[in-house]
Amino acid sequence: MKKYHLMAPGPTPVPSEVLLAMARPIIHHRTPEYAALFTEIRAGLKALVQTRQEVLTPACTGTGAMESAVANTLSAGDRVIVVNAGAFAQRWLAIAKAYGLQIVELTAPHGETVAPERLAEALRTHPDAKAVLVQHSESSTGVLHDVRAYAELTAKTDAVLIVDAVSSLGIAELRMDAWGIDVVVSASQKGLMLPPGLGIVALSDKAWRAATRSTLPKFYLDLSEERKYASKNEARFTPAVSIMVGLREVLRMIEAEGLPNVFRRHDRLSRAMRAGAEALGLRLFVKATPSPALTAVEVPAAVDADRIVEGFGISHNITIDGGRGPTKGKIFRIGHMGYAADTDVIIALAALEQVLAELGQPVDFGASVRAAQKVFAEKS
Amino acid sequence: MKKYHLMAPGPTPVPSEVLLAMARPIIHHRTPEYAALFTEIRAGLKALVQTRQEVLTPACTGTGAMESAVANTLSAGDRVIVVNAGAFAQRWLAIAKAYGLQIVELTAPHGETVAPERLAEALRTHPDAKAVLVQHSESSTGVLHDVRAYAELTAKTDAVLIVDAVSSLGIAELRMDAWGIDVVVSASQKGLMLPPGLGIVALSDKAWRAATRSTLPKFYLDLSEERKYASKNEARFTPAVSIMVGLREVLRMIEAEGLPNVFRRHDRLSRAMRAGAEALGLRLFVKATPSPALTAVEVPAAVDADRIVEGFGISHNITIDGGRGPTKGKIFRIGHMGYAADTDVIIALAALEQVLAELGQPVDFGASVRAAQKVFAEKS
Repeated sequence: MKKYHLMAPGPTPVPSEVLLAMARPIIHHRTPEYAALFTEIRAGLKALVQTRQEVLTPACTGTGAMESAVANTLSAGDRVIVVNAGAFAQRWLAIAKAYGLQIVELTAPHGETVAPERLAEALRTHPDAKAVLVQHSESSTGVLHDVRAYAELTAKTDAVLIVDAVSSLGIAELRMDAWGIDVVVSASQKGLMLPPGLGIVALSDKAWRAATRSTLPKFYLDLSEERKYASKNEARFTPAVSIMVGLREVLRMIEAEGLPNVFRRHDRLSRAMRAGAEALGLRLFVKATPSPALTAVEVPAAVDADRIVEGFGISHNITIDGGRGPTKGKIFRIGHMGYAADTDVIIALAALEQVLAELGQPVDFGASVRAAQKVFAEKS
Repeated sequence: MKKYHLMAPGPTPVPSEVLLAMARPIIHHRTPEYAALFTEIRAGLKALVQTRQEVLTPACTGTGAMESAVANTLSAGDRVIVVNAGAFAQRWLAIAKAYGLQIVELTAPHGETVAPERLAEALRTHPDAKAVLVQHSESSTGVLHDVRAYAELTAKTDAVLIVDAVSSLGIAELRMDAWGIDVVVSASQKGLMLPPGLGIVALSDKAWRAATRSTLPKFYLDLSEERKYASKNEARFTPAVSIMVGLREVLRMIEAEGLPNVFRRHDRLSRAMRAGAEALGLRLFVKATPSPALTAVEVPAAVDADRIVEGFGISHNITIDGGRGPTKGKIFRIGHMGYAADTDVIIALAALEQVLAELGQPVDFGASVRAAQKVFAEKS
């Protein structure tokens, strides 16, 4: 028997309590029971996103939520600035292209970030820019971009800052209102510990004003319409009811733990994972601020990182993930977000030691676990 | 104790076996386990939709699937013919309007249908029409439109026939390929007995050709891209994994029962429900072919139908639904689709007798159940 562990950078494990809550008989979405559920969810999401705005929950995955941010705030031909340092930034590019936007790309190598000064310069060069599209946590590389600094810059312009927080919401500090972020986009299957299938979107007053000018076509993901219903505590269309039921459970778990503690836990897990990998002589891939959602690790030149991913799966029944595009075969990525605890880091590092040894690498058994244990023993 | 029964015209109850299957630990969508699941689902959906085409499963509800059909086969300014005889037809109108299409409306009063001759004439008058948008089962009224006859007409033109089969797939006979339907759109929460959150879309060769000409913007619901991945048995984006797990279970249930038997069961339930309502002296709302998914019933002039809906809920813990728009207060609608059996019809009719009596109406107790029993006793 090898116990299964899902430690990919998403989807992430769903707590059994939540799975069982979701297995209750389906409730209808036009009943007092659903209204009570929706009231609680709306309040919980505002606390989570740290906003006084309505937080919308369209039935779609993260990509649909990303597209809704673009389709609702922009018009064909609008200029947008895309911070591109990974695979999910390329999704912004693809969406912008599909909607006929003019794109200014600020690129950085995978594993790095785009300094706020470069965005400041781009905003000066392109005063007509209508939006800045960026990831908070770029889960293809493990970098946390400084969206707080970006927001200080866009606040002085007409551009809205649209932040993909799919792998940062409920994982890394993100203060929508206080930092001045205009659109926060997220999804259910990362920090929220739910199955995929629910999008999360919130717009600032500035973004809602942009929405009134937007002429891109939309219906299913028309957020202005969605907000009309949500503010009356009603569902516009049939919602993803079972995931909404799960969402209430996880919002209660997050509230019970306390949001600052949730962020501290993720920070601790990621520091322990990094310390463990480095104790084995491996190099961390991220040259900027690392995301607390996952750890991206480089492999020795002689090793194909995809063999490590396979080793985790086949020998240890643990799902992790490899690199994408330019980093394929060069890095592996371990998720420690959402329903993740110290024990998961220990398990992953112990497996990593075994897998490296199986691949013929010299390993000082226990070294990575020892390094993680020291992080866990620190007083926080 | 009053046992809860969900008998709305959707969402519908999910079998406990399926709920528990969906409560298993989340699997990652880039694993052999998911590949095996997806292979089985793809085959099962082809059998269900009665097509040799790839059947796509975007993570969205029925409205998103409807929008995808429009956004993928049409371009701004295109002329479309909408068969409008209910609330879901109005959704086609709203989508067509949002995408800047020119609309030719063929209206009929709620409870009635649009005769194929009228569509034939509209197609002659508007030879430039690029699509015909219609419901198969219009669940706001309980009418089953004759999409087979419509398909014979569109087959001779350049227009694609786009059919909303949300409340008919797995409920009423619908032979996509044999009848020449170009786009079948459905969703998870009706005949498929699943929670809402999964769309079902299949396109004919003619519709795929239209897709190559379509210039409407789309990304999340870009079906051509979706098909590229599906035909390689891969997920394009993170799928609604838990609903996909449930989908495999229900497809197995449908295969075990046999699709013709599934259709016969729904036909039998709807005949019994109609016989029961009429035995109480109530009039059926539908003046055309009734949908086997639900029964819409008129109420005596002195009674507000919404009081009947409330009576079912409050006194009997059964969720049914009222009328929408012009029929509000005038009809109530009882769903008997998906995970529905003889016992559900008996329960609903028994409750109906009690509710009518509670509202001061004269009731011959047992009359409706007797009428339903006679239908059930018939040799099929």
